[in-house]
Amino acid sequence: MELALLYSGGKDSSLAALLLDEFYDVRLVTAHFGVTDDFQHAREAAAELGFPFETVTLDESVAEDAVEQMVDDGFPRNGIQRVHDHALETVAALAVDAIADGSRRDDRVPTVSRAAAQSLEDRHSVDYIAPLSGFGRHAVDDLVAANLAVETGPSETVPKADYEGELRAILADRHGDDAVDEVFPDHEQTYVHGRR
Amino acid sequence: MELALLYSGGKDSSLAALLLDEFYDVRLVTAHFGVTDDFQHAREAAAELGFPFETVTLDESVAEDAVEQMVDDGFPRNGIQRVHDHALETVAALAVDAIADGSRRDDRVPTVSRAAAQSLEDRHSVDYIAPLSGFGRHAVDDLVAANLAVETGPSETVPKADYEGELRAILADRHGDDAVDEVFPDHEQTYVHGRR
Repeated sequence: MELALLYSGGKDSSLAALLLDEFYDVRLVTAHFGVTDDFQHAREAAAELGFPFETVTLDESVAEDAVEQMVDDGFPRNGIQRVHDHALETVAALAVDAIADGSRRDDRVPTVSRAAAQSLEDRHSVDYIAPLSGFGRHAVDDLVAANLAVETGPSETVPKADYEGELRAILADRHGDDAVDEVFPDHEQTYVHGRR
Repeated sequence: MELALLYSGGKDSSLAALLLDEFYDVRLVTAHFGVTDDFQHAREAAAELGFPFETVTLDESVAEDAVEQMVDDGFPRNGIQRVHDHALETVAALAVDAIADGSRRDDRVPTVSRAAAQSLEDRHSVDYIAPLSGFGRHAVDDLVAANLAVETGPSETVPKADYEGELRAILADRHGDDAVDEVFPDHEQTYVHGRR
């Protein structure tokens, strides 16, 4: 069974790939807006893990709307959710049996409710799988430590290919660097360098 | 890492075992009240899958309370949830790093909310993992078909070791066979005979 996993090069989506590897033909798919070439980091991480890799291009107007929403809100949550929903719709249109992402039980954003999952599945005749949604933060940390070689640091310095890099770039371009600091709190990002 | 998986011999908990096998030292644990010897079916299914097996004994008063609740309700849902909660508490007291069950995204009962999961984890210093909670019914069916040899039939005839058999026995003993038919709707059960 062919499965497309939304992939950022970070620890969560990398661990999701390992969990599914035994049961599906997993390909790692990075969704991007064509704004930066951050997706190259995900390509390298995918190669280090030994998975096939491809990209899908998202609609840039979704990024622009998401950025305006983040500025209005003063926090990134709703904007990131909007982009993730759009990315899932885009990946669901690929010719695969199943799609997946790295969302965890304890994530606040992005989230995919049971109703949203079933709607995605029904409309696209595809299974939506969230392999980490039954794992809490501590279990994920243990599994990452045991199975992945990880680089950790602040969002600005660790190479990664989730939407945040492109959304930050659009935000800086439209509203200046201060707006980026206002919208995005400091937090740790991770980047994966292969299996342990 | 040592993991105890609540095990019935059915397809869901068997598939959960396969999903976790690569990442944990999985033992299959059947919780029972000592009312019937149905747990022997789970022991055989565990042996056919090649996992270590053990049992834990539950508090029979929980089964009795659950049965009375089912009779009062006219349906089994709340009683089964009560027994499952008690079983998780019991397994969480074992000397393991993690506990797990076979609950799925689309299950109506038993369910373990995020808050309940975190409470269980905090009180017992254990991870609670629901490996199938990110999989919908269709994805589970596909994975079962690809990975497990399964016998399917009505609840009364397929050997299985979930709580239902013992709860039916207590219910019949206290309220007669008609009460069993009133409380438990007809539904298909599954029993696993090894891997494919």
